[in-house]
Amino acid sequence: MITRTSSLFLRTLREDPADAEVPSHRLLVRAGYVRRVAPGGYSWLPLGLRVLRRIEAVVREEMNAIGAQEIQFPALLPKEPYEATGRWTEYGDGLFRLKDRKGADYLLGPTHEELFALTVKGEYSSYRDYPVTLYQIQTKYRDEARPRAGILRGREFVMKDSYSFDLDDDGLARSYQAHRDAYTKLFDRLGLEYVVVKATSGAMGGSASEEFLAVAETGEDTYVRSTESGYAANVEAVVTPAPAAQPIEGRPEAQVHHTPNTPTIETLVDFLNNAGLGRTFTAADTLKNVMLKTRQPGSDEWTLVCVAVPGDREVDMKRLEASLEPAEVALLDEADFAKNPFLVKGYIGPKALQDNGVRYLADPRIVPGTAWVTGADKVDHHVVDLLAGRDFTPDGTIEAAEVREGDASPDGHGTLVAARGIEIGHIFQLGRKYTDAFEVDALGPDSKPIRITMGSYGVGVSRLVGVLAEQNHDDLGLIWPRVVSPFDVHIVIAGKDETVAAGAEKIAAELDAAGVEVILDDRKATPGVKFADAELVGVPTILVVGRGLANGVVEVKDRRSGEREEIAVDAVVEHLVKLVRS
Amino acid sequence: MITRTSSLFLRTLREDPADAEVPSHRLLVRAGYVRRVAPGGYSWLPLGLRVLRRIEAVVREEMNAIGAQEIQFPALLPKEPYEATGRWTEYGDGLFRLKDRKGADYLLGPTHEELFALTVKGEYSSYRDYPVTLYQIQTKYRDEARPRAGILRGREFVMKDSYSFDLDDDGLARSYQAHRDAYTKLFDRLGLEYVVVKATSGAMGGSASEEFLAVAETGEDTYVRSTESGYAANVEAVVTPAPAAQPIEGRPEAQVHHTPNTPTIETLVDFLNNAGLGRTFTAADTLKNVMLKTRQPGSDEWTLVCVAVPGDREVDMKRLEASLEPAEVALLDEADFAKNPFLVKGYIGPKALQDNGVRYLADPRIVPGTAWVTGADKVDHHVVDLLAGRDFTPDGTIEAAEVREGDASPDGHGTLVAARGIEIGHIFQLGRKYTDAFEVDALGPDSKPIRITMGSYGVGVSRLVGVLAEQNHDDLGLIWPRVVSPFDVHIVIAGKDETVAAGAEKIAAELDAAGVEVILDDRKATPGVKFADAELVGVPTILVVGRGLANGVVEVKDRRSGEREEIAVDAVVEHLVKLVRS
Repeated sequence: MITRTSSLFLRTLREDPADAEVPSHRLLVRAGYVRRVAPGGYSWLPLGLRVLRRIEAVVREEMNAIGAQEIQFPALLPKEPYEATGRWTEYGDGLFRLKDRKGADYLLGPTHEELFALTVKGEYSSYRDYPVTLYQIQTKYRDEARPRAGILRGREFVMKDSYSFDLDDDGLARSYQAHRDAYTKLFDRLGLEYVVVKATSGAMGGSASEEFLAVAETGEDTYVRSTESGYAANVEAVVTPAPAAQPIEGRPEAQVHHTPNTPTIETLVDFLNNAGLGRTFTAADTLKNVMLKTRQPGSDEWTLVCVAVPGDREVDMKRLEASLEPAEVALLDEADFAKNPFLVKGYIGPKALQDNGVRYLADPRIVPGTAWVTGADKVDHHVVDLLAGRDFTPDGTIEAAEVREGDASPDGHGTLVAARGIEIGHIFQLGRKYTDAFEVDALGPDSKPIRITMGSYGVGVSRLVGVLAEQNHDDLGLIWPRVVSPFDVHIVIAGKDETVAAGAEKIAAELDAAGVEVILDDRKATPGVKFADAELVGVPTILVVGRGLANGVVEVKDRRSGEREEIAVDAVVEHLVKLVRS
Repeated sequence: MITRTSSLFLRTLREDPADAEVPSHRLLVRAGYVRRVAPGGYSWLPLGLRVLRRIEAVVREEMNAIGAQEIQFPALLPKEPYEATGRWTEYGDGLFRLKDRKGADYLLGPTHEELFALTVKGEYSSYRDYPVTLYQIQTKYRDEARPRAGILRGREFVMKDSYSFDLDDDGLARSYQAHRDAYTKLFDRLGLEYVVVKATSGAMGGSASEEFLAVAETGEDTYVRSTESGYAANVEAVVTPAPAAQPIEGRPEAQVHHTPNTPTIETLVDFLNNAGLGRTFTAADTLKNVMLKTRQPGSDEWTLVCVAVPGDREVDMKRLEASLEPAEVALLDEADFAKNPFLVKGYIGPKALQDNGVRYLADPRIVPGTAWVTGADKVDHHVVDLLAGRDFTPDGTIEAAEVREGDASPDGHGTLVAARGIEIGHIFQLGRKYTDAFEVDALGPDSKPIRITMGSYGVGVSRLVGVLAEQNHDDLGLIWPRVVSPFDVHIVIAGKDETVAAGAEKIAAELDAAGVEVILDDRKATPGVKFADAELVGVPTILVVGRGLANGVVEVKDRRSGEREEIAVDAVVEHLVKLVRS
């Protein structure tokens, strides 16, 4: 069916929307693809819905190709399954919760691990039934603290979520790899520029996990990659390489020094370097002890924790929080210090902490045999040569220190540089968190139960519309990759002559008959207005039917390159069909 | 792609689900199409999702054919637009309401009149832009008091809702008719048995309105139809034909009689017929005054109302409520009577009511000149020959009396009989309720604003899966119409012989290549189990590949008629392709 601009529900805007921060948001609104209905809530106008549906179709093809089976769950879900796994509380404010007329608790599904696990448990019982992978393309809800960038981070969005169910870890690894390959194919087909980064798994639980990040300056995910190898990781997922342990025997004793007027690491290092100790100190030789308190989900009780990092690095709160998840983390207030007088503010050292049973978690660089300058639990005093493994032993390690450009890559090759991206896919080896919660077992060949292991895999389907717009635009407007463009060819009638209109209609009808999706600008507007709209809307091929028609030629313009070509009117349908199918 | 039962996420059940009241619910669960997740919330397993998607495709085709344009709104909507039209409160307990993390009010959309009106206002401004019809196929939410019958009445369901926007009433009438025609085509294509009935418009507002009801004994909508004409209507929408007014001059005076021991209409009629009045009375000569109180949405204040109906008819509360909508209706309690001592219980008459300013609404049969026996506002006393239009004048008429089989059809042809159905479509001429609320105007050719008039049209898309199952099944299972069947052909491999399996695979591959959707039962199960599952699942054509293959024949079975036919294996693909495309 030919779509005619004269009756299409489309009004382009000359002005940028006031709330648009990023190009994709600005252009999708200006070109009439989406409209804002609420914070983080958008309606899809005809052009936007066409792009969304085409992306869905590609996602569906790639999921079906790996044998995944499509089903669909409600979005409105009862509380109980989410309570059983703890996610009812762990999700915090991010979950939309509501009550029905009888007062029963419900939520709007953020992801569906619980329901898929319960459904597989309900249908399958024998080891012969497995493996199975199920998926849905469905509307999801998350009460984002800061919905932003139009459809890039909404509160209601379309997601493809799939779940694999396997009998053992090898099976899970195969299902995970199948998804990794399918996502690679999918994002390649969409023509996206992206990286695969190691990731933490957040509130999902589980172990192995990678994110697919579309490269975008405007992205809100920061990741790092190696200058020399293929290593890439979310900053939260960077694992600090631990140096080798050093010998402890024969090392100098720890000594407490009076260090007045050293409120900062810098002044402390200066003081020591002028104290005649015969050595040079740097900030990296000092140990910063950062006091925190944590609270488990659903609990009212705060517990003290101290995080130790080398003095030349700040604590990165996002890395720290990811390490302690799902616990909530807060800094201490004056009342906390008052309650715990052994904490000498500014001079906290491992000794008082460990004497008083405070959990002490250290940066991975603090290996046995490393010597540190740190607080001596006494005002105006620091201790030098405090030896890890001799004078103190951390309760564990923690990834909390900032990652910096120039840090050694964890894989041993090259150094790290930072970049920004937008998450478009996420794959997890969940393991048995959910199957344990619901006792999802298969009866084995020996009649013994086998606990099923799960993977969970997501693609942000509606977000991809925004990501593709982010990676495919210029100053004039959008430039869709052919595979998702709302139309194949945008025909502009340039001229009031009736023969011109008739010629355009004829070409449109022939293209339509050949299965090419055509939008025909048949409005009574100036060619200038029509050209500007065609550039803005971003169909990859623009056909201009104008004065040249009298000489038997029309003009084919490539939206991306801007190249124009005159084509004989008799040959143009064949030319375009070939172009569209290339 | 060939679907193989061996790996399909499908487990049929031998037992009926305990909560299933109707055949469609029982069979859709047993055959593995849907599973219950919550009260009124169902998941779609692979077979169910296929049927749902095929119905959606037919709906989409018919909507596009009348020039409607598809868009999509969020389901999670801000309160404000619904507050502006009053629906935030009018919907009562039927609306799912929730708050976001900032405490702002939201709802889950039951229908989207407000949003469509606002969107058209946002995009369009000139009379040249109109008319336009927009639609969506989208998930809707209603907190039903009694979700029932599986997907027939859920709390989360898929609906096609469309909205027309016209410059004038003639345009609206045309848009309405276009939808009426499209729905007729649609339901005909689905092979449904249905009637179109006059309907009330409920909380939607507006005037002309019809419902499409699928004929079903298990339906919860009762409707009536004429024995002689095409008249059909929802019971709530039956308009009582008013008799002609009668002369008032020369009629006997009203007379109060002492009527002890007449607590019921029957005893009252008996008493009068034995009182020597020289006339015979029937229950139809008496007037029942039923006291009620009503409260407008959002108000705390109850107002007294009296509804008068002929004594031979009961008040039908559903008709009464539909007449008074959106007001809430309740019966009086003892406290109400105590507060209003002019109400003499059992002997209430129009005089005391009208003297005390109580709104008095009468059945349409109570026309001027009709004489009635009714209460005399005094214990043990009734009045005879109380003449409408002389002794009392109602404040208005009301459709509150029950409709009975045998009543005259409102169109003057034949009498009414009752039947039951399930609402599958609803078309409304909304008028300007929503465009007034949001001031949706077009600038006319004379530069004066024209207030737009709206229509609203719905199809219960997911409900249609249940309705089709309700109308298409037998004792063995489902029998899908070809147009919505999850597959075109169900191939059963009957026999363990490898040549049988290979023969079936070959036919399946050839059908698949010809674009026929095939499910192939390749399980290691007995032919009996496979046949039973094929009957239950309900694909209209079953191909049995078994022992006959050695003699060059296979068996084609028609699921609906049960007829079997042996076909030469060389001819079967051509035969089936023809059958499927017929």
